[in-house]
Amino acid sequence: MSLLVVGSVALDTIETPFGKVEDAVGGSAMYFSASASYFTDVRLVAVIGEDFPGEPLEFLGRRGVDLEGLHRTEGKTFRWIGKYTHDLNEAITIDTQLNVFGDFHPVLPESYRDSEVVFLANIHPALQLEVLEQVREPKFVAMDTMNFWIEGEREALGKVLERVDMVVINDGEARMLADEANVVQAAKKIQEMGPDYVVIKRGEYGALLFTPGDIFFAPAYPLEAVFDPTGAGDTFAGGMLGYLTKHGTFDTSCMKSATVVGCTMASFDVEKFSYENLEDLSLAQIEARGERFQALTNHEPLALLDGDA
Amino acid sequence: MSLLVVGSVALDTIETPFGKVEDAVGGSAMYFSASASYFTDVRLVAVIGEDFPGEPLEFLGRRGVDLEGLHRTEGKTFRWIGKYTHDLNEAITIDTQLNVFGDFHPVLPESYRDSEVVFLANIHPALQLEVLEQVREPKFVAMDTMNFWIEGEREALGKVLERVDMVVINDGEARMLADEANVVQAAKKIQEMGPDYVVIKRGEYGALLFTPGDIFFAPAYPLEAVFDPTGAGDTFAGGMLGYLTKHGTFDTSCMKSATVVGCTMASFDVEKFSYENLEDLSLAQIEARGERFQALTNHEPLALLDGDA
Repeated sequence: MSLLVVGSVALDTIETPFGKVEDAVGGSAMYFSASASYFTDVRLVAVIGEDFPGEPLEFLGRRGVDLEGLHRTEGKTFRWIGKYTHDLNEAITIDTQLNVFGDFHPVLPESYRDSEVVFLANIHPALQLEVLEQVREPKFVAMDTMNFWIEGEREALGKVLERVDMVVINDGEARMLADEANVVQAAKKIQEMGPDYVVIKRGEYGALLFTPGDIFFAPAYPLEAVFDPTGAGDTFAGGMLGYLTKHGTFDTSCMKSATVVGCTMASFDVEKFSYENLEDLSLAQIEARGERFQALTNHEPLALLDGDA
Repeated sequence: MSLLVVGSVALDTIETPFGKVEDAVGGSAMYFSASASYFTDVRLVAVIGEDFPGEPLEFLGRRGVDLEGLHRTEGKTFRWIGKYTHDLNEAITIDTQLNVFGDFHPVLPESYRDSEVVFLANIHPALQLEVLEQVREPKFVAMDTMNFWIEGEREALGKVLERVDMVVINDGEARMLADEANVVQAAKKIQEMGPDYVVIKRGEYGALLFTPGDIFFAPAYPLEAVFDPTGAGDTFAGGMLGYLTKHGTFDTSCMKSATVVGCTMASFDVEKFSYENLEDLSLAQIEARGERFQALTNHEPLALLDGDA
């Protein structure tokens, strides 16, 4: 199966308590593709400006990511300037410069239109709909969104939600979308809007997967050195969708493992700036860390009914 | 084995988004005892005023809690007035009235001095030391504390930390105590202060257990109806210490199961005001919910190295 992602490729200027980078390569589609490429073929749709460097594209090419849908146009690349304080769960946006992304309308190359799995990264819901119009017969569609669209583009967002199988959003976005403080009830309300599967990302705490009849929780691995959380959410989604596409099954069991793979990939991402730590992993390395995740919550069965208490 | 707890018994006035109670029975030792009583014998040391009602004491008596160390003195019972907004992870203190708790010095009845497991709930570290002076030969000592003592009573707190096996504190307290933003590094620094085991409570996200060579994570069960989080931390500690005392072993394996039991008991507590939901549980009920916790994180082994990706 092949996996299509539509989103942003960006240049990020980021300050964390541990350092600062200027014009580091980022964007949702960049992180997603790098992460998913460890598991499956990826087709990328995004736009970059004349100033975007060549090396990241060579990297994606080496990782087998199809770049036919990556358009380079006149103007400057989309830029995000942000920072994190010691609460690494929350990014503070200092400036967003849309640049070439302002006029972006995703056009899928003919060769992409048979994509079976689709990830609509965080872009305007109207653009997410444009993508869905161009994909012939997707088997599984997942989406991300953000508070900006939840507040201002409810109607278009509602139309996307009706057509997707899974939504991957963070805690605060889920609460806002459902207008409900309790995360379990929020997930249920979102399921009623369309998607069977709701994945709620909780930063350093992990991710919750809500299926039609089940709840699953994948913890984030407690890392000693979280350096830069930028891209963690998209790296998570890339790992999750990449794993699902590799196996071509979308049942609850595979979905649970995929959630753990997502958390595993995100744990690599946050250890360095940009996509640096996603450049040269091996599946054995990913599996080894995935096993550490599993060990993190493994325990003997509770012995409550025996003994002399 | 028998379990000694020294802490507060209080009357709490609490407002949550879901309701309000006045002079509801609470306090660290109250929640701890109610919770631990499902697993082992509990001996309680605390002080109450003339105004404290009889029913909660009868309840503790029925649950087999030894109340010889509960002193009733002239004056009013310790009162806490607080509220929670929709972020149920954080209590906002409106007022604290120490009353009889202001002059409290824990005196252990002779029959308590052979206690093998001790929980020093969140009281002045000097009082925690007074308790340790009175216990003959404890096998396992755990403690809680709070930001107030971390800021103002560092030296006394340091002396307690040197003498305990385990500290059970929340996320923010751990960071403050260690002066370290990263929770893994904070736990390591706290271990260097004395305790082999550090348990970090993370509210609705669960609890992390740091042992001398291992990390374990027990998620909180995602509940649809969290009503009042008051006492969740002490109910957690009661479940954890109660389970350890019941089994009389303090190795990493038993410690992990005990952490899950702690989270399980806390999940009952938060569903109702005060200790109402801890009044009439059965071990079968506790075990059933504990199994749901285990199922929450169970998944098939990751299949990364096979397949056609």
